[in-house]
Amino acid sequence: MPDHPGLARGSRLIEEDAASPAVRAVYEDIKATRRVDRVNNFWRALAVHPPTLERTWESVKQVMAPGALDPLTKELLYVAVSVTNGCEYCIASHTAAARARGMTDEQYGELLAVVGMANETNALANGFAVPVDEVFRTVS
Amino acid sequence: MPDHPGLARGSRLIEEDAASPAVRAVYEDIKATRRVDRVNNFWRALAVHPPTLERTWESVKQVMAPGALDPLTKELLYVAVSVTNGCEYCIASHTAAARARGMTDEQYGELLAVVGMANETNALANGFAVPVDEVFRTVS
Amino acid sequence: MPDHPGLARGSRLIEEDAASPAVRAVYEDIKATRRVDRVNNFWRALAVHPPTLERTWESVKQVMAPGALDPLTKELLYVAVSVTNGCEYCIASHTAAARARGMTDEQYGELLAVVGMANETNALANGFAVPVDEVFRTVS
Amino acid sequence: MPDHPGLARGSRLIEEDAASPAVRAVYEDIKATRRVDRVNNFWRALAVHPPTLERTWESVKQVMAPGALDPLTKELLYVAVSVTNGCEYCIASHTAAARARGMTDEQYGELLAVVGMANETNALANGFAVPVDEVFRTVS
Amino acid sequence: MPDHPGLARGSRLIEEDAASPAVRAVYEDIKATRRVDRVNNFWRALAVHPPTLERTWESVKQVMAPGALDPLTKELLYVAVSVTNGCEYCIASHTAAARARGMTDEQYGELLAVVGMANETNALANGFAVPVDEVFRTVS
Amino acid sequence: MPDHPGLARGSRLIEEDAASPAVRAVYEDIKATRRVDRVNNFWRALAVHPPTLERTWESVKQVMAPGALDPLTKELLYVAVSVTNGCEYCIASHTAAARARGMTDEQYGELLAVVGMANETNALANGFAVPVDEVFRTVS
Repeated sequence: MPDHPGLARGSRLIEEDAASPAVRAVYEDIKATRRVDRVNNFWRALAVHPPTLERTWESVKQVMAPGALDPLTKELLYVAVSVTNGCEYCIASHTAAARARGMTDEQYGELLAVVGMANETNALANGFAVPVDEVFRTVS
Repeated sequence: MPDHPGLARGSRLIEEDAASPAVRAVYEDIKATRRVDRVNNFWRALAVHPPTLERTWESVKQVMAPGALDPLTKELLYVAVSVTNGCEYCIASHTAAARARGMTDEQYGELLAVVGMANETNALANGFAVPVDEVFRTVS
Repeated sequence: MPDHPGLARGSRLIEEDAASPAVRAVYEDIKATRRVDRVNNFWRALAVHPPTLERTWESVKQVMAPGALDPLTKELLYVAVSVTNGCEYCIASHTAAARARGMTDEQYGELLAVVGMANETNALANGFAVPVDEVFRTVS
Repeated sequence: MPDHPGLARGSRLIEEDAASPAVRAVYEDIKATRRVDRVNNFWRALAVHPPTLERTWESVKQVMAPGALDPLTKELLYVAVSVTNGCEYCIASHTAAARARGMTDEQYGELLAVVGMANETNALANGFAVPVDEVFRTVS
Repeated sequence: MPDHPGLARGSRLIEEDAASPAVRAVYEDIKATRRVDRVNNFWRALAVHPPTLERTWESVKQVMAPGALDPLTKELLYVAVSVTNGCEYCIASHTAAARARGMTDEQYGELLAVVGMANETNALANGFAVPVDEVFRTVS
Repeated sequence: MPDHPGLARGSRLIEEDAASPAVRAVYEDIKATRRVDRVNNFWRALAVHPPTLERTWESVKQVMAPGALDPLTKELLYVAVSVTNGCEYCIASHTAAARARGMTDEQYGELLAVVGMANETNALANGFAVPVDEVFRTVS
């Protein structure tokens, strides 16, 4: 089993050759769906609790599939949430995914500019206790 | 001056006809840039502190202009951050802005699905203390 | 017992004349310490669980007393946290407390400007994954 | 170009001698305004996207200038927000800035005590669903 | 169709008699699983986007089922997260669910006390930049 | 005095043999109350500001004592909040505390599953602006 010099606080990662058949089936589906050779650490950590691995993968697979929004836009949204929450792992993995889907430096800069501005104006709206305009309350 | 039956906790809104020339100039620029007839409450609340009004408007105008990301994508990102922070005003106003730029119900559903999933997996990555994969650390 | 037309979701407030002697003693200490005639709703809600009321009041009384930081600065810090968390009650009550301690409109505008900017740059630092400068790691 | 042994996840930093003239002009203004010899990593990371560098620096310069609140108070507020958001970089850089402006250990202890207490009572106000007192809703 | 006097900002709720067969099937499963007569608003709002309704209900049903943790403990955990995030709807609905599973006032008071204290010490750990003890890094 | 190779950003830790009598008394109470041989870093960092050390320890001791909720449940709640806030130190220390009180891998998996789901549905409730059901507003 490989060594993990950067292994964080007691986290355990289930290696592919140590995985149960059920876990291995999820790993194979991840690799096939994403066309990658290696399952990234997030899934190998979730494999400690197989029901969470299976449910989360099924949900992510469904949610991130192409639909009314294209896959790059979905990755940008994922980064926006992860940056707002300060989740280092998720920023790293979804920035990589967005780059793999074609995100340019310019797009990344604009993404972060919007995310920064939204976090600022969220605070300003709270602080100034701005009442919602009637026009925003109407379902069109 | 109009009445504000829904006026929240002590918030003050600077009406257009009560605004100083500097504030009115910002109001006019907002209306012209966005092609709207009315300045929404966010800006009328910020007008209590004109330097914040001016700086915030200049920044938002620059950041939300068409660029490497299109205006609809930028509004979706704004909604994603605002939902994550639970900012009611900003969810309402930027959802309205996204709809004005063509967001469909289907897109809104997918946006919220991605935002929900990102918030879930951010928590899972934290809880399982997932170490960042070496492959995500490389600048390509 | 007075009516509470604005009473939020099932919250219960323990009125002064319905309070147990232990709760009433806290109420009296709040009024004496702050030189106010009325105990605000926060404490009347906590009184549903007297140990939490007593412990929280003792802590707040200690922490907010004049010390190396003056009381107005402490109220400004309380507002900064509450705005960042989007806690409507705490924004309202601590803004009122700051105003009672002399906060001007200009100071409130600058406070919110700093809080907004800090929330923006927190997001930018996360998004750009900025490494901490060596010089900031040294205890002087 | 210097080595960055602590360089985080793929972040890029634009060195001064590799910067474009526009970026270098911002760097010079940062050093002159703050009377420092070195531009800290935050700005060198933002320089990957020059419009964000320029806009953010102009905003920070304006917001953090002396005004109705003094510069130390503004740094304390910045730390309060950064601690609440758990932004390691911003805690480190603004704690250093506050120390440079004279913050003592005693003041830092009280700052964190207030920030801790505010985060606690924000949660209690949410959990007990405390309704805002009428008296806090009035603009004086 | 019933009237919704308290209907928030443009939210739409899909009534049971206006639901598609697929949505109605989820509604029936919710009522049968929880032994309730009425589907609460959360699900009626999600029904605007049926894939999100179906996926979220399947996930919640799986996650909240009795397992290694009992259902009351799971509801307490749900409240703890919702209070930390300041999600009014989720605090209200999961507090009601916890009460339906037997939560007493005393338990609710202790739950909120722990949640408040955890939010406080999270901030203190951030602010004092406490390094993780080696002993906490070991997987036992 | 021992070396701290992993010492984070300028944090100072007050060693037991360098502590003042008042700080040492708290350390002794922590060790006696928890039946441990070593005071963990959190308290050694707070000791830089003795009033915060004393107050926080007294509060934590009171809040985490057995009551209407058992100590393991309280630790699970602490982890839930810490995961939601992304506080690495608090996740590590309270996960260790929960394991010391008997938390199994299965329970940890379910805990994180609930926390993840709660964070997801908090976002969905915000995004869909779900109005609180009347039935949840009634105090029973």
